[in-house]
Amino acid sequence: MRLRLPTLLLALALLLPPVARAQAPAVRVTDFATGLERPWGAAFLPDGRLLVTERPGRLRLVGRDGQVSAPLGGVPAVEARGQGGLLDLALAPDFATTREVYLCQAMLVQGGALTRLLRARLAPDAASLEAATPILDATPAQEQGRNHYGCRIAFGPDGALYLSTGDRYADKQRAQRLDDLAGKVLRLARSGAPLPDNPFAGRPGARAEIFTLGHRNPQGLAFQPGTGRLWQAEFGPRGGDEVNILAAGSNYGWPRVTRGVDYDGSRIAEAPSLPGMVDPVMSWVPSVSPSGIAFYAGEAFPAWRGSLFVAALNPPGLIRLTVAGDRVTGEERLLDGPRIRQVVPGPDGLLYLLTDEGRGRILRLSPG
Amino acid sequence: MRLRLPTLLLALALLLPPVARAQAPAVRVTDFATGLERPWGAAFLPDGRLLVTERPGRLRLVGRDGQVSAPLGGVPAVEARGQGGLLDLALAPDFATTREVYLCQAMLVQGGALTRLLRARLAPDAASLEAATPILDATPAQEQGRNHYGCRIAFGPDGALYLSTGDRYADKQRAQRLDDLAGKVLRLARSGAPLPDNPFAGRPGARAEIFTLGHRNPQGLAFQPGTGRLWQAEFGPRGGDEVNILAAGSNYGWPRVTRGVDYDGSRIAEAPSLPGMVDPVMSWVPSVSPSGIAFYAGEAFPAWRGSLFVAALNPPGLIRLTVAGDRVTGEERLLDGPRIRQVVPGPDGLLYLLTDEGRGRILRLSPG
Repeated sequence: MRLRLPTLLLALALLLPPVARAQAPAVRVTDFATGLERPWGAAFLPDGRLLVTERPGRLRLVGRDGQVSAPLGGVPAVEARGQGGLLDLALAPDFATTREVYLCQAMLVQGGALTRLLRARLAPDAASLEAATPILDATPAQEQGRNHYGCRIAFGPDGALYLSTGDRYADKQRAQRLDDLAGKVLRLARSGAPLPDNPFAGRPGARAEIFTLGHRNPQGLAFQPGTGRLWQAEFGPRGGDEVNILAAGSNYGWPRVTRGVDYDGSRIAEAPSLPGMVDPVMSWVPSVSPSGIAFYAGEAFPAWRGSLFVAALNPPGLIRLTVAGDRVTGEERLLDGPRIRQVVPGPDGLLYLLTDEGRGRILRLSPG
Repeated sequence: MRLRLPTLLLALALLLPPVARAQAPAVRVTDFATGLERPWGAAFLPDGRLLVTERPGRLRLVGRDGQVSAPLGGVPAVEARGQGGLLDLALAPDFATTREVYLCQAMLVQGGALTRLLRARLAPDAASLEAATPILDATPAQEQGRNHYGCRIAFGPDGALYLSTGDRYADKQRAQRLDDLAGKVLRLARSGAPLPDNPFAGRPGARAEIFTLGHRNPQGLAFQPGTGRLWQAEFGPRGGDEVNILAAGSNYGWPRVTRGVDYDGSRIAEAPSLPGMVDPVMSWVPSVSPSGIAFYAGEAFPAWRGSLFVAALNPPGLIRLTVAGDRVTGEERLLDGPRIRQVVPGPDGLLYLLTDEGRGRILRLSPG
């Protein structure tokens, strides 16, 4: 007798214990690691350990057992006031051989504060960074304010390094200026130099590093498996948080187009949409305060494959967006706290969440 | 003193300095009409009066000044237990000459309860219905339970009458059966007969009335201005509320595909998606409990043109979905109460909201 697949599945289901058969796909949330101060960015090393930044300016390794190391040496000074500090990190695609690590941080220079990208090497004993070198400053520096640094790093399937920068809050128009690196997503060689095929390369008065413009405070960057599309998330003002798909040279509108209003309730947007400016794939009013994002492609949660996870600060939690191609088709709010800064899929198919807390943690989501 | 939300918003608006007040896209919420018991469906007459159903089985007219009439005569008996009663109404496209009104209700017949469609005429003095005649029963009737009647009516640009029916809750599989009118959207002539070009017309064992199948409890139906697409909203179980775009003959998956779980937490869906079943345009977990929907095309709120409004029961309020073509690109939660059953754009460009309350009201949203 040839069993058809549904029959086979039914037979398998009948073999399961009654409770497992009846229950929903439950999620277990555990504290994987504790004792981290405002963890912001993280990446898994090939050996399964997790390299984590703490916003005040430290870098630590978390073992596969959740043990947190002493701070690594060789970490550069940071400007840790306001929203600044040591923010994201990313491993080079060839980390296994080069041990290159890229870091993004807030830095104080002549003229004020800015977003800075650095390249470094992880020492053979992984106890320190070596030769940490600034390779790009998102100039001009700004005296006023210490907010909206952006600072997320992602490597593309094209080998390029993508870096998000915030508008630095005080002057919203910086996001629209092509001679200014604030409020942009940049596309760089690993030296920090602009890539020659960037959309504004060679245009007089424009910075060749710019990949996209018109961003407010983007802290989420993730390439979609299978399509190579670059998805991005940014904080709106009061309302108007956005998820975007980034295309070379496109303008995402801030502050001329936004679905939010200013913190005092006054209008910011000129119009709900404008020609030549790209509308978001998804937006929220009121805010969800989206920080890091990640696509899930693991095996542990089959129903989540292809979903985009969004770390949410306020209301605090984790959002799962169902995605079909280039569109969002649903949202699920999975946790209702604590504030989540970043979501990192592990090599084990589990999800690791960095909590934005003074006594911060890494939560682990596993099938329950 | 406990201030209700509209009062509070108004008070806050008046406290703001004139510039801020002028710039914010403020919305004023007022009680347009009171003294209605669980209003469910409504339609504006050509003379500007609003014809409203009350779920217990009454029909009333609300004047342009918000005055509520005595109950109209000639309204048929209804089965008002559970979620049943007198539910939606729609005016015929040629109402101005025919005075034809279509009503949807729950009814008790031999074998149990079902969703029933009626045709009637509004008397010249608008004090009663005349010749209310059942033209379609969504058979088979079901003894068990008094929930999930669906019951929203919409006339299409093709002149057809579209009617949503619920799965009646007790047997989810009814939504998948082609010989059963539960859990469907039907496409009918004004006689209640199936239209000859319906997708299952002529298929042995299938009901010719069916336009789409695989629905749970759809209470929202709205044609999109400019595209003629039929949008629909339905209640999921625990989570999994959906907005869909309906195409002739398509299967929307319930209960084989849903993003929700059963009320006891057990799994319902076989898979997140299945071949031959259409995924929603938007879904929510946890639930928003979407009842009526309407596209906005008025002049009073230019920024809302093209948006799809969703009346939400729980959490109670009004949701505005920004829409680009056939996709949802953002959501705004506009009110945080009370429970809203239906949203009706007025001929004046204002929005009228039916509250699902025993002492029900019609709220009016106007520029603040």
